[in-house]
Amino acid sequence: MKIELISVGSELVCGQIRDLNAPFVALKLTELGFNIVNHTISSDNSIQLKYSLQTASERAELIIMTGGLGPTNDDITREVVADFCNVALVSDQKTVDHVENLIGSIHNQKFVNSGKQAKVPEGGIIIHNTTGTAQGFLVKISQVSIICLPGVHTEMVRMFEDWVVPYILRESGERKKRYTRVFSTFGMPESILDEKVNRLVKPDKYVSYSTLVNNSTVLIRVTLCDRDEINAGSILDNIENEICRELGVSVFSTHEDTLENVISNIFKENTLTLAVAESCTGGLVSNLLTNVQGSSAYFLGGIVSYNNKVKERQLNVSEKLIKEFGVISAEIAKAMASGVRERLQADIGLSVTGIAGPTGIDIGVDQKRPVGLVYIATAINDDLECKEYRFFGSRADIKNHAANTALNTLRLSLSGKTAKQ
Amino acid sequence: MKIELISVGSELVCGQIRDLNAPFVALKLTELGFNIVNHTISSDNSIQLKYSLQTASERAELIIMTGGLGPTNDDITREVVADFCNVALVSDQKTVDHVENLIGSIHNQKFVNSGKQAKVPEGGIIIHNTTGTAQGFLVKISQVSIICLPGVHTEMVRMFEDWVVPYILRESGERKKRYTRVFSTFGMPESILDEKVNRLVKPDKYVSYSTLVNNSTVLIRVTLCDRDEINAGSILDNIENEICRELGVSVFSTHEDTLENVISNIFKENTLTLAVAESCTGGLVSNLLTNVQGSSAYFLGGIVSYNNKVKERQLNVSEKLIKEFGVISAEIAKAMASGVRERLQADIGLSVTGIAGPTGIDIGVDQKRPVGLVYIATAINDDLECKEYRFFGSRADIKNHAANTALNTLRLSLSGKTAKQ
Repeated sequence: MKIELISVGSELVCGQIRDLNAPFVALKLTELGFNIVNHTISSDNSIQLKYSLQTASERAELIIMTGGLGPTNDDITREVVADFCNVALVSDQKTVDHVENLIGSIHNQKFVNSGKQAKVPEGGIIIHNTTGTAQGFLVKISQVSIICLPGVHTEMVRMFEDWVVPYILRESGERKKRYTRVFSTFGMPESILDEKVNRLVKPDKYVSYSTLVNNSTVLIRVTLCDRDEINAGSILDNIENEICRELGVSVFSTHEDTLENVISNIFKENTLTLAVAESCTGGLVSNLLTNVQGSSAYFLGGIVSYNNKVKERQLNVSEKLIKEFGVISAEIAKAMASGVRERLQADIGLSVTGIAGPTGIDIGVDQKRPVGLVYIATAINDDLECKEYRFFGSRADIKNHAANTALNTLRLSLSGKTAKQ
Repeated sequence: MKIELISVGSELVCGQIRDLNAPFVALKLTELGFNIVNHTISSDNSIQLKYSLQTASERAELIIMTGGLGPTNDDITREVVADFCNVALVSDQKTVDHVENLIGSIHNQKFVNSGKQAKVPEGGIIIHNTTGTAQGFLVKISQVSIICLPGVHTEMVRMFEDWVVPYILRESGERKKRYTRVFSTFGMPESILDEKVNRLVKPDKYVSYSTLVNNSTVLIRVTLCDRDEINAGSILDNIENEICRELGVSVFSTHEDTLENVISNIFKENTLTLAVAESCTGGLVSNLLTNVQGSSAYFLGGIVSYNNKVKERQLNVSEKLIKEFGVISAEIAKAMASGVRERLQADIGLSVTGIAGPTGIDIGVDQKRPVGLVYIATAINDDLECKEYRFFGSRADIKNHAANTALNTLRLSLSGKTAKQ
């Protein structure tokens, strides 16, 4: 069954509001094995919306529309769908009463245009909205079914899960279930990953893959369809083994974990503690780590040593060292890592220092360092290591790349550079 | 000029990734007075994409496409557009060299398929990408112009602002200009704001407004159209005066500044310095502040005192105080604020301590505090103040609300609670 989604609302088309409905519906239905062919975001204009319905009906058997079911004059979905199906809009007294009672209980006042929200195209089936006033509906014309749901996300979700999904599952009959496995990678460019994965997976009508850059991470999603569940599991296991062997330590998760989740697991499994010293990342590394529930079990804290005096006083980085090597240097990064480890009494210290930009800084020895130059150091017991990086983009990009690279550096240092964790 | 947007990518159609590109482009062009008629989100399927191009060309004079310009086999935009325009894809050696140099400098390795990303439909004009490898282009067919930009949002934004907007302004001629003013507010619920603004603005066919929740901030966008510039300016000034008078300190910017930008300005104008102590926000406050270019002029740094021992040793919070009042308390928040101010020798100290969740914590006096309980304290000279909050939602929501409320608290404390800064 081919499914097309139409989200209705001029505030969506103008970019003022982000559409949450179509992505939600698409993800759920794709997971159930259905084929979403297209999304359209249409304005509150009858001609445009009817045109979108027309083109959708030419490429899909089911159209799911969200939005435009409210009480105002801008809400045109009912009228347009009725027009498209060449039927009248009719009311069901029971539904009118339901809507008015709902309004009364929510708002303690009579509501104009309440009648509008209880109307459906003649021949349609009402999809009840128990938490809001806009009732949805299903109509069929020729070989096409059209389902209309409200735009308010929470109401849409409830009606979708309670009514629409069971309906679609009943109506759809035989469909190809999909099995996916996602490989989260860091450190290898997308084009190289794509070339390697293409060679290993050998896409055909049963197995396909996609790559997706998500901040500094590249996700590889391998999808299998039209296989029974046992067979699919072992095929994906084989693919997983080959991908992990080929991509090595670039793969940090096969469970859609974030880098910070993976690090949290490593630290907890080894009962180690961590402290972080940050300069150019300004708190971002600590913020990422503390996004993980339970991180307080291993993460002691951090020092954001934005000013040089803070590096000196809180991290024991000597003024002499800063004068000699400059504050953006491997020597300072190492001193920060060992300093924060000692001061916070952690097993491991991690540090980041660099230039986030967009302007470079003069580091006191009349030497300009470029924007994007970053040093990341780790202090593991007495072992101090440091690596130099060059990142590109805006201030936000550089902070982001630097922070994620710091996390990845930590991961690799601790995992002793073995294959995926 | 009617404009249609097409975002290309199966990961968008499947709902895995949210499209940031079309909403961004739509908002900018709408503000400039252009008419966006539709968005389509298309999969990486040549037939579907060509069909979407076809329908778009029947209702718009300009089609802006984002995505599908990468190096992989799923990236089909160039091929489909060339096919639609019935021309071949050609390379420009200069552009090929540019792309290869860019790849070389980022990744230090040769890049397969680099040639693909430098190709354009014959007769097209290249839109250069200075921060990424996918070059964009403009082609014309009959009365329709097609602009293709990469899907990577930061790259798309830069090319859109540097090349596409000037191009469209040159080509577009006469259009109804729109004038907008945006009020950034914090602390008042959206429904109350909406009711007040509706009363003040009195929307009609010339003036309208919208409210948009963006994290903890609510943006109020007032739009005027079809007026000459002088008249529009003074009408908006009047509206601004009334809104600011009615909403008071809730309004923190009329220039689309973030809270952290506003704080940066306050600190610099008063030559004050700041230090931040964070527990539950885990580095997020420092991260937000350091997102602002030039923040090192006033922000000395921060202590992320995740573990109680770190509070004791780095912030001079006494173990006795923690035992007596519990670590989530106004007393500890105040001790953290004054502690970080002293230790980092700043004029102002700010602290946040609380429970981000999703589980509550036992605080040592056999008393459970609820998830979302947060204390925010400021230390301004000898003046210590603290306020208690209850936030709701996921761990990320609570961290986010707490961090932004901390910034707002700082803003209000410093601005002496006068009207907008």
